[in-house]
Amino acid sequence: MQYVKIKDSIVEQIDTGMLSPRQKLPSERKLAESFDTTRVTLREALSLLEAEGRIYREDRRGWFISPRPLRYDPTQSPSFSDIAQAQDRSPATELVTAKSIMANKQATSLLHLPPFSDVYHVERVHYLEKRPVVYVTHYINPTYVPNILDYDLTHSLTKIYRDHFSVVYKRSHYRISTSTLLGEVALALRATSGTPAMVIERTNYNQDGDMIDCQIEYWRHDAIKIESVAALV
Amino acid sequence: MQYVKIKDSIVEQIDTGMLSPRQKLPSERKLAESFDTTRVTLREALSLLEAEGRIYREDRRGWFISPRPLRYDPTQSPSFSDIAQAQDRSPATELVTAKSIMANKQATSLLHLPPFSDVYHVERVHYLEKRPVVYVTHYINPTYVPNILDYDLTHSLTKIYRDHFSVVYKRSHYRISTSTLLGEVALALRATSGTPAMVIERTNYNQDGDMIDCQIEYWRHDAIKIESVAALV
Repeated sequence: MQYVKIKDSIVEQIDTGMLSPRQKLPSERKLAESFDTTRVTLREALSLLEAEGRIYREDRRGWFISPRPLRYDPTQSPSFSDIAQAQDRSPATELVTAKSIMANKQATSLLHLPPFSDVYHVERVHYLEKRPVVYVTHYINPTYVPNILDYDLTHSLTKIYRDHFSVVYKRSHYRISTSTLLGEVALALRATSGTPAMVIERTNYNQDGDMIDCQIEYWRHDAIKIESVAALV
Repeated sequence: MQYVKIKDSIVEQIDTGMLSPRQKLPSERKLAESFDTTRVTLREALSLLEAEGRIYREDRRGWFISPRPLRYDPTQSPSFSDIAQAQDRSPATELVTAKSIMANKQATSLLHLPPFSDVYHVERVHYLEKRPVVYVTHYINPTYVPNILDYDLTHSLTKIYRDHFSVVYKRSHYRISTSTLLGEVALALRATSGTPAMVIERTNYNQDGDMIDCQIEYWRHDAIKIESVAALV
């Protein structure tokens, strides 16, 4: 099929370095011309490349070559900045919102809270080399980290926990699922609505077994590669 | 937004049991009429429900309510039938192809084989309650399980390994990513091309640390929920 050939040709140009990470592809019209094909066939090739995470779209800006994904090991501490720095990447964090709320349905169920509990609600966007890659919602139990909203929440939460509250994550319960980016989350990640997403939901426990917080992460799917080794029972 | 209200109303009907797993939804025309809305708005609601894994589409047959997903713990043995039976589900396996081939690029790289090695190539589809949920490609190193193609490969591979070759998985290296269902894989899973997919790639080692085989699994994203607990370092 012609679109598979076009896809393979673009993959080869990426693998040999003729196309570099973060490079913008020419317009669909120009690409169709240079491959001597129709826009419909070209778009099938682009969809295939997007499904494989080789290219990504920024809303209204066009198609770009994907940088290498961040390796994410769910059995390690979930600090975004630690993970990025260990892989020689440049992380940054933007704070979207931080407030104390009455726990909603999701927070109550994830943190096993009694009804009408207060909970800190924090939303952040993490960047790699200035590209937004993951949107995170945190629900934090105020009991263990009171007044954490007074700290600079563009810094690592795990570091603030450790340095100011002597709280360290010792255990995580995690769930991984697939969804699509929609609405505000898509907007914050500069993604077209409907882009595939990897969703990681974690509840984190401290050294005494208390449930400290939970986080729901929406990743651009090409920006992450979950990878680990398991000793099987 | 109106489509969010429609979505919430359908979710409520699922949660209260008015709509049951595997039940077919009325046609889009009828649904649009009963919600007194347009086809465009209705489709936005359906997309949201599909993204959340609450409904799924079978190609040319329409929309259905998703059964509960299979919980999949990557730190446990990857036998589909064992996992399904432990959760009171009804598994079945269809053999698509089983042959000896000269290792292709993917098999060579995953199994660390020298060029021109022979490898067994097996493709299977696993079903839950007669619904196809995952398409699996296996590449198997013939050294450890010679003539395995003579066995009935609709049965559990791990069981054949253990019973006939005394080979047991002791360690797995796994990678989890997100993609979309396309081409033959989509067809085998009765999915519309472009449906979100969860991809699990594993290489499995025996009790002596030898790399026995690898598998690439394409899951319908609503059919699986990856879940585990990690002791953090």
